Amino acid sequence: MTSLDTHQANSLAPDWLDHPTDVNRLNPAIWPIGADRDADGMLRIQGHRADNLMASYGSPLYVMDEDDFRARAARFAREFNGWQVYYAGKSFLCRAVARWVNQAGLGLDVCSGNELAVALSAGFPPDRIEFHGNNKSVEELAGAIDSGVGRIIVDCAEEIERIERLAAEREATVAVLVRVTTGVQAHTHDYISTGHEDQKFGFSIQQGQAMAGLLACSSSPHLDLRGIHCHIGSQIFDTEGFRQAASRMVALMADFRDRTAVSLPELNLGGGFGIAYTDRDTALDVGCLRAQLAQIVQDALVGYGLDSCRLAIEPGRSICGPAGVGLYTVGVVKPVLASESATRVYVSVDGGMSDNVRSALYRADYTAVVANRRSTAAPVLARVAGKHCESGDILVRDVYLPGDIRPGDIVAIPADGAYARSLASNYNHALKPGVVAVTPGHAYPILRRETLDDLLALDVG
Amino acid sequence: MTSLDTHQANSLAPDWLDHPTDVNRLNPAIWPIGADRDADGMLRIQGHRADNLMASYGSPLYVMDEDDFRARAARFAREFNGWQVYYAGKSFLCRAVARWVNQAGLGLDVCSGNELAVALSAGFPPDRIEFHGNNKSVEELAGAIDSGVGRIIVDCAEEIERIERLAAEREATVAVLVRVTTGVQAHTHDYISTGHEDQKFGFSIQQGQAMAGLLACSSSPHLDLRGIHCHIGSQIFDTEGFRQAASRMVALMADFRDRTAVSLPELNLGGGFGIAYTDRDTALDVGCLRAQLAQIVQDALVGYGLDSCRLAIEPGRSICGPAGVGLYTVGVVKPVLASESATRVYVSVDGGMSDNVRSALYRADYTAVVANRRSTAAPVLARVAGKHCESGDILVRDVYLPGDIRPGDIVAIPADGAYARSLASNYNHALKPGVVAVTPGHAYPILRRETLDDLLALDVG
Repeated sequence: MTSLDTHQANSLAPDWLDHPTDVNRLNPAIWPIGADRDADGMLRIQGHRADNLMASYGSPLYVMDEDDFRARAARFAREFNGWQVYYAGKSFLCRAVARWVNQAGLGLDVCSGNELAVALSAGFPPDRIEFHGNNKSVEELAGAIDSGVGRIIVDCAEEIERIERLAAEREATVAVLVRVTTGVQAHTHDYISTGHEDQKFGFSIQQGQAMAGLLACSSSPHLDLRGIHCHIGSQIFDTEGFRQAASRMVALMADFRDRTAVSLPELNLGGGFGIAYTDRDTALDVGCLRAQLAQIVQDALVGYGLDSCRLAIEPGRSICGPAGVGLYTVGVVKPVLASESATRVYVSVDGGMSDNVRSALYRADYTAVVANRRSTAAPVLARVAGKHCESGDILVRDVYLPGDIRPGDIVAIPADGAYARSLASNYNHALKPGVVAVTPGHAYPILRRETLDDLLALDVG
Repeated sequence: MTSLDTHQANSLAPDWLDHPTDVNRLNPAIWPIGADRDADGMLRIQGHRADNLMASYGSPLYVMDEDDFRARAARFAREFNGWQVYYAGKSFLCRAVARWVNQAGLGLDVCSGNELAVALSAGFPPDRIEFHGNNKSVEELAGAIDSGVGRIIVDCAEEIERIERLAAEREATVAVLVRVTTGVQAHTHDYISTGHEDQKFGFSIQQGQAMAGLLACSSSPHLDLRGIHCHIGSQIFDTEGFRQAASRMVALMADFRDRTAVSLPELNLGGGFGIAYTDRDTALDVGCLRAQLAQIVQDALVGYGLDSCRLAIEPGRSICGPAGVGLYTVGVVKPVLASESATRVYVSVDGGMSDNVRSALYRADYTAVVANRRSTAAPVLARVAGKHCESGDILVRDVYLPGDIRPGDIVAIPADGAYARSLASNYNHALKPGVVAVTPGHAYPILRRETLDDLLALDVG
């Protein structure tokens, strides 16, 4: 009788969570390419032991596998050759990342003046930057124009007037896309094809605002209308939502051509490509994604008798997300009888919703391992909690961890490269952890850990 | 026929949201005591015009009505005379706030070493500080003991051992409370009296861990066991949950007395007292709260034949929350046909989930007004959105605002003094707004606005 035969399912475990055959395994679909365990069972990223990294850079710690990031960026560049690929900086941006993206030959999508400033300070070529946002200030628009960003994605009627005025003052011409709302909204395995006009972004196709926006741009003397953009959601695992969105966008382009005799040369499909956070997720292969999206757009173009156009996408999470690993130190292990018959082991670590709010904010799922050793203990259903004074302060809601997990162990959470550091707070005066980049033979901080003095520097009262 | 007669209910409005009779009104149940409009219709806080404050301290801006804060703190001190009242620093803490709390004679509840450091740097008397947390590090515990905090609230078995070891090393005695889980969980108008053992905090009464924790503390030579603590939830509007929790806590105290002949001298009921965020909320009167809680505990003590004991509470939000107002500048106004027949006006401002994540994180409701003028325009159903690249970036989900709202207007959101600045992030490289304290005749920054240089100082890669 194997241990699996004797395994009693924990009634608190969600349906999708399988009892692990090996609780020490690093699923390569989730972990960065540089992740393995050494002979002691210690997690390494690109050969750097987790314990050594934490000794040098503190705990908690974000580790960014630079080679993994660069490989994913290069894969997008290669597979989407001929397209414009913009890395979505909101997912994670600092100067080093801007350099990596630049060196991969990708473009960069920024959505604030400060994100633009970070990119420019890293020497990112402005003509490969596009500027997004539902409420760009006049100062931000002026800064974007003055720095020569390649595209501004216009989001509303006021903005067309603002850009035209700023461009006229400068006797400049500004290349723009019009962000449209297609009514398609996709998230994970669901998509909804109607009724999602109720959002702050873009010009509605259905309500005619998109056409009005296109006509306004095309008649503005200082705007160079290049095409249209949409973004249908996040953590998307199939391309059906893109099919519906592309069909509506191409119909709009055809309508515009019929009215103006102008074929818009660019079509930007946005981002939202899902990554694997847990064993149940299967990310779309980048090559397949390219083939499917190309076919989808081609079908739509042919259907409406349009020539081919320049295509663009905006991957963010799918480049930086899987490259990141969060390292934490266990402080408290507390088994709790959470129902009549089932125990959940609360593992409290030295970070939490301040350094990764996605579980609390989106009820996002992650997985985790004990990183500093291999264990032969039977797995127990665990919840990795933070140290904040809040019951919703959860990092990993449901995961099997070895039953001998104890204070002092290192817990590693993979796939935290996107929207963890970028959304970090100082709740309970927590200090934002450092981010260390690792390559074979080299580890260096790209964002240093905050200090209490950093926080107190703001406290002037 | 009045405008109300002709008003067509907007089918998108939630049931609880009434069509306003005066869209310019500042409901005193929600706004700080110093809020009014001057002859021009401009919002003032303690006589300081919103536009002038923003000109001096930037936009967005948190304004803290110091007199309102101090009055609420004084009210708790007065009504709860004879109790120990700890201000919950997690809701909003900086040096100035620590001074205000100290001057009101209240205690302070901190839940990290850094919160403790802020309090001590403001000269807060350590003996009136209590230290909370589900995962206090050994360094934090040592720091708390060395600084002489009045109480440590122990949360788990490991911590008892850690404190005993640290105290023995120092030949010190450490006063502790044991945090217990009562199984009662309260939130807004709901409470659940069983089944909420499934959390990271405390020792379960039902599972016997609370008694084991009490016995361990009482037998630890360097621990001075003072009593028990519980926290049943947040935004609570009636005391029924406290009744159930107190009954279970007092039963535990009676059980402990029966086993040890020791009557525990302290009972801490925690916090969670609700405040009004919108017109539908009615905060508990502090005097009534005192009377009801006192009666609840007295009934329980009598029922178990226990003598009276020292009582404590931990208000945070109910002191700082209503004192705070968020000021934003409108950038974009976009009417969206959000259903077949109903329009929602998206009002995008220059902040968002980076400076107040509560709407996104807890689906919290707020209200808002146009702050820079009175309007006679008919109200429209609006949503105040931020400027972040995320569709969930909402500040106020449902509110009626004047139909002539336009770019450049100031939008003010009341009751944002708690859990807004304290949870603020730098998403999209947004800078944390400043916090300005206002009294009649005086306005001064208590947290300065971040700069891009502050952010770039961390960017070392």
